[in-house]
Amino acid sequence: MVVTAELSPTLIIGTGLVGASVGCALTRAGVEVHLVDAVRSHAQVAASRGAGTVDAPDPKVVRLVVVAVPPDALADEVEHALATYPQATVTDVGSVKGTVLAALRARDLDLSRYVGSHPMAGSHLTGPLTATADLFVDRTWVVTPHDTAAAHAVLDVEQLARLCGGRQVTMGPAHHDEAVAQVSHVPQVVSALMAGALIDVPPEHLRLAGQGVRDVTRIAGSEPALWQQIIGANKTAVLHELRGLADSLDRLVAAFDEPGEVASFLERGREGAQALPGKHGLASVAFARVVVSIPDEPGALARLFRDIDAAGVNVEDLSIDHDQEREVGYLSIQVVPPRADDLREAMRAAGWAVRDFDHVTH
Amino acid sequence: MVVTAELSPTLIIGTGLVGASVGCALTRAGVEVHLVDAVRSHAQVAASRGAGTVDAPDPKVVRLVVVAVPPDALADEVEHALATYPQATVTDVGSVKGTVLAALRARDLDLSRYVGSHPMAGSHLTGPLTATADLFVDRTWVVTPHDTAAAHAVLDVEQLARLCGGRQVTMGPAHHDEAVAQVSHVPQVVSALMAGALIDVPPEHLRLAGQGVRDVTRIAGSEPALWQQIIGANKTAVLHELRGLADSLDRLVAAFDEPGEVASFLERGREGAQALPGKHGLASVAFARVVVSIPDEPGALARLFRDIDAAGVNVEDLSIDHDQEREVGYLSIQVVPPRADDLREAMRAAGWAVRDFDHVTH
Repeated sequence: MVVTAELSPTLIIGTGLVGASVGCALTRAGVEVHLVDAVRSHAQVAASRGAGTVDAPDPKVVRLVVVAVPPDALADEVEHALATYPQATVTDVGSVKGTVLAALRARDLDLSRYVGSHPMAGSHLTGPLTATADLFVDRTWVVTPHDTAAAHAVLDVEQLARLCGGRQVTMGPAHHDEAVAQVSHVPQVVSALMAGALIDVPPEHLRLAGQGVRDVTRIAGSEPALWQQIIGANKTAVLHELRGLADSLDRLVAAFDEPGEVASFLERGREGAQALPGKHGLASVAFARVVVSIPDEPGALARLFRDIDAAGVNVEDLSIDHDQEREVGYLSIQVVPPRADDLREAMRAAGWAVRDFDHVTH
Repeated sequence: MVVTAELSPTLIIGTGLVGASVGCALTRAGVEVHLVDAVRSHAQVAASRGAGTVDAPDPKVVRLVVVAVPPDALADEVEHALATYPQATVTDVGSVKGTVLAALRARDLDLSRYVGSHPMAGSHLTGPLTATADLFVDRTWVVTPHDTAAAHAVLDVEQLARLCGGRQVTMGPAHHDEAVAQVSHVPQVVSALMAGALIDVPPEHLRLAGQGVRDVTRIAGSEPALWQQIIGANKTAVLHELRGLADSLDRLVAAFDEPGEVASFLERGREGAQALPGKHGLASVAFARVVVSIPDEPGALARLFRDIDAAGVNVEDLSIDHDQEREVGYLSIQVVPPRADDLREAMRAAGWAVRDFDHVTH
């Protein structure tokens, strides 16, 4: 086990899903964790999930305080923690960083021991029942040092993010808030916009709903009280983005009769959707294509699929290409690049005509 | 096996994912299926997936023709099928019904043998490689009879929907188009609106994207060419809905400084998201709550979770209730109503204080 005594003891204030999961992750990493919550039964549930102990720590020796309370209560709790735990680095896990910082600055405090952070997983109004040490594994955890943050405090919070398994990213508070407006707060508003329109849709029509509208409106089902606080705390950045969206929508409506307008609107949408990095924040994986010509004879494809299986290469995607001029078809088999040559060889060995080109696609 | 000779032989024109999957489902149900596609290799792939044969049927005896080509080609193919297969009921599987019907009406044809339908699964521009007989199982399949449709033709298409395992719904063509504008076409536009805005977002910001924005923008990644055709075919209904959305968004932007406005906007969103029926088109299941008081002692919850497991009742959801006055907590365990009494008894037998009320929630 990594030596992590340096963050012991840690106090977690607020044991909702995020706070309790931080407790579970730190406990697993060997850190001594204490839990406190305005609702004592929440802290008890968190403790029963392995997040730490509900016993109070000695205030003088607390090394790290993690404030995981709803947005409106963050500044007060951070101020209180800085005063109560004189040796501790204090961080909060709120979704908006500029507002908390501005509120703290207005109080004229020494903020050298405070460094905000934002683990991008879970929600502050969900309870500790589903807390898990794995909540932050491979999820982005933004650390947002301010102008007067002490180096040791920044290092502590970066260490916290790493101990929880997060992919730690450093960004200034205002920068962070603009970014999350774009990729989190505005999508929340858009989801609510679409979902709100469903209220006026008759139930017989809603029966026709498929997976698409469910996906678009899923996050609209989250806690409005929490999102009102988050969006309110990041008003300027969110409003700026919303104005842009309203303009796009107005332009689309005005030009709706021109098929080219709708087409380019949809094309932009696809481009934007593809711009999102793949799972776990990695870039989309590039696959190599192995292209086999499809013989014009019954049963050939069943045999081809059998031979692909037998080659033991994992198929990531399949598509049919068609040669307009020669009236022949090709099966394009996408595989991870290191296995492309193996598959080509196996296909040739089994008697298939493999097209001799290599095209990397995304 | 059900006797389904009545739909044999069926001809499927267009063997993309939808056409090929209809072929697989009908073949499994014992229907003789023939496949044709402008791109012969697609029909061959479909045949190799078990969707039927690429041999041409005797035109005089074809009982049912399923036209599964892209939207812009539907009317021509239906007209051609009505002329070529004089005994056949002809249906199409396009996503918009009014446009095809209007185009056919303009040609002054006898349409008694034509009945449109819309299986709500798959896509017309995806190939047959992932075709499966189960594509339509428990998915909505709308049959849209028009004013002059013959009874036997309507019955044939309803039979088709049932043989494919779909939940068959009957609705007039214009009614259908309004409904799908609301629950499918407009969500597609909204997803593209959000995704299009991501084009201008720096990659470092996109790295902060979580599951929410991915869900909202997922369908924006679908084929723009197909969606342009669908939306173009359902222009009036889609535009009407989009104007409503644009107004909502403008109102939100104008009133963004009033927290009450944002709150009620988000609240409406949650209400709309919850109005969508549960999986497979069933209403959300109502669960019964079993409420157990949480004792204020260490380890109690671990024991409680163990006892819940031991009771052998499936837990659908869990939440913590808190009594503001008495400083005690309750664990609310949601289960299917028939098992609530079993769980209550088991909890009492294990020594837990079970609260004596029964609250059904959604």
